[in-house]
Amino acid sequence: MAVGLSEPEKIHPVAGIKLASVSAGIKKNGGNDLVVFVIDKSELSTGMDDRRVIQEQSPTCAATFTQNAFCAAPVTLAKKHLSLFSPELPVRALLINSGNANAGTGETGKQNALQSCAWLAEKLQCSAEQILPFSTGVIGEQLPMPALQSGIDKVVSNLSKDNWLSAANGIMTTDTIAKAVSKVIKIDNRAITISGIAKGSGMICPNMATMLSFVTTDANIEASFLQQCLLDAVDISFNSITVDGDTSTNDACVLIATAKANNTQLNKESAEAKIFIDALNDVCQHLAQAIVRDAEGATKFVTVAVSQALSKAEAKNVAYTVAHSPLVKTALFASDPNWGRILAAVGRAGIEQLDISGVNLFLDDVCIVRSGGVDADYSEEKGQAVMNKEEITIKVELGRGSEAVSIWTSDLSHEYVRINAEYRT
Amino acid sequence: MAVGLSEPEKIHPVAGIKLASVSAGIKKNGGNDLVVFVIDKSELSTGMDDRRVIQEQSPTCAATFTQNAFCAAPVTLAKKHLSLFSPELPVRALLINSGNANAGTGETGKQNALQSCAWLAEKLQCSAEQILPFSTGVIGEQLPMPALQSGIDKVVSNLSKDNWLSAANGIMTTDTIAKAVSKVIKIDNRAITISGIAKGSGMICPNMATMLSFVTTDANIEASFLQQCLLDAVDISFNSITVDGDTSTNDACVLIATAKANNTQLNKESAEAKIFIDALNDVCQHLAQAIVRDAEGATKFVTVAVSQALSKAEAKNVAYTVAHSPLVKTALFASDPNWGRILAAVGRAGIEQLDISGVNLFLDDVCIVRSGGVDADYSEEKGQAVMNKEEITIKVELGRGSEAVSIWTSDLSHEYVRINAEYRT
Repeated sequence: MAVGLSEPEKIHPVAGIKLASVSAGIKKNGGNDLVVFVIDKSELSTGMDDRRVIQEQSPTCAATFTQNAFCAAPVTLAKKHLSLFSPELPVRALLINSGNANAGTGETGKQNALQSCAWLAEKLQCSAEQILPFSTGVIGEQLPMPALQSGIDKVVSNLSKDNWLSAANGIMTTDTIAKAVSKVIKIDNRAITISGIAKGSGMICPNMATMLSFVTTDANIEASFLQQCLLDAVDISFNSITVDGDTSTNDACVLIATAKANNTQLNKESAEAKIFIDALNDVCQHLAQAIVRDAEGATKFVTVAVSQALSKAEAKNVAYTVAHSPLVKTALFASDPNWGRILAAVGRAGIEQLDISGVNLFLDDVCIVRSGGVDADYSEEKGQAVMNKEEITIKVELGRGSEAVSIWTSDLSHEYVRINAEYRT
Repeated sequence: MAVGLSEPEKIHPVAGIKLASVSAGIKKNGGNDLVVFVIDKSELSTGMDDRRVIQEQSPTCAATFTQNAFCAAPVTLAKKHLSLFSPELPVRALLINSGNANAGTGETGKQNALQSCAWLAEKLQCSAEQILPFSTGVIGEQLPMPALQSGIDKVVSNLSKDNWLSAANGIMTTDTIAKAVSKVIKIDNRAITISGIAKGSGMICPNMATMLSFVTTDANIEASFLQQCLLDAVDISFNSITVDGDTSTNDACVLIATAKANNTQLNKESAEAKIFIDALNDVCQHLAQAIVRDAEGATKFVTVAVSQALSKAEAKNVAYTVAHSPLVKTALFASDPNWGRILAAVGRAGIEQLDISGVNLFLDDVCIVRSGGVDADYSEEKGQAVMNKEEITIKVELGRGSEAVSIWTSDLSHEYVRINAEYRT
């Protein structure tokens, strides 16, 4: 049961993007498990065929991937293909399967990832290098290749600009609800759309990326600026959430800009760059928070806001130590204002020379600890009233500096244990 | 239900140590919650009254404490008193209460800890500085001082050299079984006894100490050597276990040597030093493993053995990342040989330039991953057979060097969530 999260509303199509989702028989439950995003081939609307125009009107693609050393075969291959993209060899498709992570699968896994790209490339009449493959699901099993091949045949015949919600469903594993969001902004006097989907519910502690998220826009954006926008957005969204502290082998976040809106190319010098950055940050934070709201077994959506730190790294360290503590998480599940566990987590975060007499702790607006001791006005009833809510902010003031960070997490429930104990059965 | 752990057998008395355990009414369930260890005053058996003899036959005391910045009031006070010990002002007693951690209790908590020492000192006709106080239990509540005072009156009238098992019971909180062990060795042609108790079941990821452990010996041991022996033993015992990654605010481990065995004083040059070190290591490892066997909700006792690392720190980092992973722990609870989760944890441990083609993974003697890929002889049946056992070793070979570390942990069960969600109700 997702916390404060309902089925996505209508997702605006993005000019230049078609997508589809089918069941290829990879998931045991028969649900959709194969999704394809196809990016239109560049059509030079100006009629000019010089290299400058090709460069300026090609779709651009930015991506970040898991830092897990045991990254999956598709991650390795997607990184390689990404490095080969150019205006002459632009991204043509994303090929995503759920139900099988193709991780821990050795040489066979790598060949299967490449073969999948080759099958789709044949259908799209492009090169296999123009396709980025992604997988999510059980680790350590080989992909069912004949099923995948039939699935690819089927999925390309279902492409449409309106299949966003079925795509959001098709990439889910233990998710209970689809995650998608859409935003329209105005840049260069043109309407610009940003639409994205994400999946993820467990094994969530992204490190430079999330489980899987695919965001697209029809804006025309310079490639290096697009990559920087994505990294900055991911830092304050997917890289600021945790369910269980486990970084997946398959995390990836992709941002594609089709350039179909025909705006003057955006770059870091553009006057309107901030409009795009703000909208992208909103989209990524919505999707990242949706993952936490749908965290395995979650009954609470918790913001951990740490301020007055010497550095952002210090603030993030404290925030994650609180958010990862099984004792804090079980107290949240029990709606128990057991603030001693929060203090104990702050205290073990390894901050050098932390003066506890400078530390304040709040649950929403209720001050529990002031200057390292229980606040004179605090009562168990006040703490309980906050804890009874579904959405809670744990605010820690360190009294050391001026840096602040917010991250989002969930509680630890019986349901989390059940889901993860029964995952492969 | 503790894993492979039964009630302690008879614990040998230690010459120079008397102890007692009573119910002072601190625990809500009415169980014993106040324990006192009293160390005999030095009696100079030689009749000589010179300073050398006082120095060489005084009881000595070594201790380590939690590294948590929010350490409890008794921890702060015990550290201070420990620093004042001398042959003329030796340790006289340990005063331990369970049911209340006296942590997060501010100035009042400090005064209460000091007052408790003063009450016991009056009974024992010594200085309050000769007493080390310890508390364990709920964080953030003040000690019930009148109850504690009556309890101290009662406990000193019950002192005996044989109360080890009742003391082991009296320091328990969520423990389901008492933890005590005893060993007799021969040094300097004299029988030397080492007897100790410990408690702990949750909030267990000791950092230079454990929840609470009290080990005593009648050996005559030079003080700085005793401290070194304790630090070394703790490193491979209490500092090598984890239940939930949460370091307590009250962790402490104390080792007292009464010198009553009248052996020639042991120091680091002694020919027989290693006999003592080995026995102490055995005692500490037994108690540390007992804590993991009795971990909250544990159904498995798991050894994580990491070898072929570049450094011990690197090996310990990998071992703890595996041992802390909620996904590995729920798979262990489910007896599911979901080795992909173990690999994912190894991969996110942050080892620089880990070449996964050098990594091997075993469950007991069953090789699952060889050179980074699934072993040709591995079958799900073989993995399942190991996973069905109560005691399992996860062996990770990193293929980088020659350092090795073993740590011990438990699984993550429904019962862990229930215990910690209901802890204060």
